[in-house]
Amino acid sequence: MLAFAVHKQQLVTKEKLLPKLRPRWALVRVRLAGICNTDIEILRGYHGFAGTPGHEFVGEVVEVRGVSARERARWVGRRVVGEINVTCSAYGYRPVCVPCGRGLKMHCEPRTVLGIVAHDGAFAEYLALPVENLHTIPDAISDEQAVFVEPLAAACEILEQINIKKYSDAAVLGDGKLAQLIARVLRTKLRDVVMYGKHEKKLNLARLVGVKTKCIHGNTGDAKRMVKNYGLVVEATGSPSGLALAQHLTEPRGTLVLKSTFHGAAPVETWPMVVKEITVIGSRCGPFSKAIALLRSSKVDPAPLITRTFSLAEAHSAIQFAQKKRVMKVLLKG
Amino acid sequence: MLAFAVHKQQLVTKEKLLPKLRPRWALVRVRLAGICNTDIEILRGYHGFAGTPGHEFVGEVVEVRGVSARERARWVGRRVVGEINVTCSAYGYRPVCVPCGRGLKMHCEPRTVLGIVAHDGAFAEYLALPVENLHTIPDAISDEQAVFVEPLAAACEILEQINIKKYSDAAVLGDGKLAQLIARVLRTKLRDVVMYGKHEKKLNLARLVGVKTKCIHGNTGDAKRMVKNYGLVVEATGSPSGLALAQHLTEPRGTLVLKSTFHGAAPVETWPMVVKEITVIGSRCGPFSKAIALLRSSKVDPAPLITRTFSLAEAHSAIQFAQKKRVMKVLLKG
Repeated sequence: MLAFAVHKQQLVTKEKLLPKLRPRWALVRVRLAGICNTDIEILRGYHGFAGTPGHEFVGEVVEVRGVSARERARWVGRRVVGEINVTCSAYGYRPVCVPCGRGLKMHCEPRTVLGIVAHDGAFAEYLALPVENLHTIPDAISDEQAVFVEPLAAACEILEQINIKKYSDAAVLGDGKLAQLIARVLRTKLRDVVMYGKHEKKLNLARLVGVKTKCIHGNTGDAKRMVKNYGLVVEATGSPSGLALAQHLTEPRGTLVLKSTFHGAAPVETWPMVVKEITVIGSRCGPFSKAIALLRSSKVDPAPLITRTFSLAEAHSAIQFAQKKRVMKVLLKG
Repeated sequence: MLAFAVHKQQLVTKEKLLPKLRPRWALVRVRLAGICNTDIEILRGYHGFAGTPGHEFVGEVVEVRGVSARERARWVGRRVVGEINVTCSAYGYRPVCVPCGRGLKMHCEPRTVLGIVAHDGAFAEYLALPVENLHTIPDAISDEQAVFVEPLAAACEILEQINIKKYSDAAVLGDGKLAQLIARVLRTKLRDVVMYGKHEKKLNLARLVGVKTKCIHGNTGDAKRMVKNYGLVVEATGSPSGLALAQHLTEPRGTLVLKSTFHGAAPVETWPMVVKEITVIGSRCGPFSKAIALLRSSKVDPAPLITRTFSLAEAHSAIQFAQKKRVMKVLLKG
């Protein structure tokens, strides 16, 4: 099959064998894959990952190993998305690790992560995942929507971690892909969601769905002039400077959700967290079922965030294009 | 009266008039004042404070203005400690600020802070505070214990912010004065409290009250070798390197309480917070009544943390001495 892989901080084309299946794993033909900022970071050497990147996808099950004929029939041909953390139980480890024992599968210690940690991802014709990771996609949801389930689930995770009813408004820092999804998810629960970003065109996308926006030019200076405080602030700029502004915008005893996972140490002043007694909540992957339900209900439609779709064979060009300013989601079509 | 003041990053002796009293403010003769790391930071220019430092004290009320004869008689001659945040209501501002309106008096926006922000503190013969800030000290509590009420309350604040019953053990990072009080407070609720520090002598003080200890030499290397994870970690090292180790020791979905308020930006990697979905809680001043109750119950006795007591006139020498390695609490006797 055609696949791409990271080699010395370059994306290289590979002709690979189909992935081998463990018992209760499925072979999935990738229909659409999304390019995420994490993929760009992986290409810069983050995680030292050397396999096939790509963790956002919608695909079709073509084979399942080690299940009954009935279960096989239930899966084969179905459109699916897949949770990206592959836990010790899926590898057959016994006993399972401490976090898995506590039910925190997303924090499994020896986990592999699709397209990120020791597990080939979606920038290929096929990928393999345990069936326990798969979620079927109802017909009402298009491929172009379903490919957003993974990042949309990450946005939904915020609602799992906080009691949204305690807040009357929220600020989202950042106007990129994840920030856009977060603002849309919060908007389903709060009337006033304000996005702070640097790009008028991106902010405009948020305004179209009822999100208020503030365009900031430069960093610290603007931050100091912002006197409005929020009980809930979500940092999703993907930039080291975001945390300082986020702390500034959070009211005393407020909640700051941290979504950015840039790498490397950034100079941060942490005393405002202490002085304002802010609660900072780190937030990563989220519930796929909630994301699928949101798409099905039409409360959130991420499809307008797609800037362009390339064929899988054009992955090199797609990755280059995805790094341009003003570009939002770029897809690869299998 | 004799008072000390910060002038160009030096402590200078001043002969001052007694502080003037607003209605419902009390004049307090300082019996004992404690030297805190914040005082050392103030001398280095933190907060740009130019008045009399000192915010830990026990004193005696000598006068109260603008109250009934009966209320005056209730206060004068009593031993007291005082909350350090002086709120807008105490200055007679109407309406009160937003945080005060929400009952968050410690986060009052135009607040002054005893010995820290625009309010002369305890390194003097007398200080002034609103009576609403004062707490009387029962006879069973010595001056040497009472002078710890302010930092002990800051340690107690942790129990206000988290549900301690959710945790089976805790790590305290740091072996300084605040870390020692925090470990003692947590020890009243948890069997296993482990203090991580760099000074065997200081760790020994904690061992004497049933706190387990781990001596770490160097920083990052040791941190990487520590495989034990805790559901609750308190960062009280007062050092920028503390946060990285604290994140490392916190288990996935665990709680990290941030107590250090060093100044300046430190290089911090924040992605472990996100990947482990850690909740970080900034924690500052706390409930004086809880601290006084702890002292009264003899569950915590901070007096063994006193290294030496100087007379107020010797404040210069005391500040020098307090900055020496291995020195714990240094007091000034009025």
